[in-house]
Amino acid sequence: MTDVDPRGIRVLAFDVFGTTVDWYTGVSDQLAALFAAHGVDLDPGVFAAEWRGRYVPSMARVMSGERGWAYLDTLHRESLDDLLREHGADLPEDARAAAVTAWHRLPPWPDTVAGLARMRERWTLAALSNGGFALLTALAKHAGLGLDCILSAQLARAYKPDAAVYLMAAELLDVEPGQILMVAAHTWDLAGAAAAGLRTAFVARPAEKGPRGTADTAEDTPADLHATDFLDLATRLGA
Amino acid sequence: MTDVDPRGIRVLAFDVFGTTVDWYTGVSDQLAALFAAHGVDLDPGVFAAEWRGRYVPSMARVMSGERGWAYLDTLHRESLDDLLREHGADLPEDARAAAVTAWHRLPPWPDTVAGLARMRERWTLAALSNGGFALLTALAKHAGLGLDCILSAQLARAYKPDAAVYLMAAELLDVEPGQILMVAAHTWDLAGAAAAGLRTAFVARPAEKGPRGTADTAEDTPADLHATDFLDLATRLGA
Repeated sequence: MTDVDPRGIRVLAFDVFGTTVDWYTGVSDQLAALFAAHGVDLDPGVFAAEWRGRYVPSMARVMSGERGWAYLDTLHRESLDDLLREHGADLPEDARAAAVTAWHRLPPWPDTVAGLARMRERWTLAALSNGGFALLTALAKHAGLGLDCILSAQLARAYKPDAAVYLMAAELLDVEPGQILMVAAHTWDLAGAAAAGLRTAFVARPAEKGPRGTADTAEDTPADLHATDFLDLATRLGA
Repeated sequence: MTDVDPRGIRVLAFDVFGTTVDWYTGVSDQLAALFAAHGVDLDPGVFAAEWRGRYVPSMARVMSGERGWAYLDTLHRESLDDLLREHGADLPEDARAAAVTAWHRLPPWPDTVAGLARMRERWTLAALSNGGFALLTALAKHAGLGLDCILSAQLARAYKPDAAVYLMAAELLDVEPGQILMVAAHTWDLAGAAAAGLRTAFVARPAEKGPRGTADTAEDTPADLHATDFLDLATRLGA
């Protein structure tokens, strides 16, 4: 079934945005309400995808040393302000703050909660995301994910795909890097995890970026294991 | 009912050993099995209480700078070795390792899980313990505590009652110290929390140290709120 021996795995580490929860739908819906309330004539789905598109470049500027470490909330706020200006649109301060916290309240994919529950029977389940610790805690609580612990890149003061983030997870959970299976829908995340010595599972989330977006595919993503969703992942792991 | 306004609280932070789980019963039972298997003629309950008695002094040596930072597992192992030697008893290496991990598998008090479930409806629930992150994650999973996140003194590289530990919790959860209610059965822990600006709730655990031990009492423990168990705490908070 796979070249990952599930007996050698002790921790399943889950990327969150796009992999575990549906940011496109969650952010689009919340933006739609804010745009309507404040007369902003922009497509919330297109805007959500553009906003997310600024995410990796904004982290890259942190990791390159171009700027100091900053919370994901701060990066989200800056790219929101940039995008609104570029579109010639305006939102009042409280609506901008509400839009940033839209990323704290996102729906799980339909298979997420049931798949996690099956896997939790056998392994320790951790969030491992670039979101801040408070954001991830709120998000996991709101979505009812049922994880064993929250780990955030904030604890390493680095961002994935920096090896420091993956190695922080191994250190805090007192396991070898190779005893962690990193689960993500993103090629760049799994490449970083593999480089740090973790095992990798790709879960396809073709709708991640909405109807106009192009999600990463299994064909383009080297990984120890490929799954179509969290239920399929649980089955492939024998859970 | 109390001078804590529950509306001002956003996070309930729970001490773990003695407050949330019953270390005396859990460690005694596991020691009894190890002692029987290896012909050690010591009372496991007395030994468990003596072992726990070394805990605060061993942490104090870390916090005073007498020694560098060390995991709770390491402190437990050192005090186990010392106690066995003082009693003229011996255990093989694997039994000593198993005894140390007895602290990772402890039963919740009978009211713990139901009380936490009620409080989780309204607040973010965190473990906030001197145990290591891996230990606490394993313990919470094994006991089915149902917390929203694990916080460990390890993340601050300090030990309660050092203010750094309580302030780390506020920083990571992005709240003011006064928005955290620290819940503990120990006078020294709540004194440290109050000094760091947290609100405090004392929960009486009269059986914490076993039939021969003397647990901290409400009378001797200044706190914003006093409760008899986690169900009473939930009621006093209006949950």
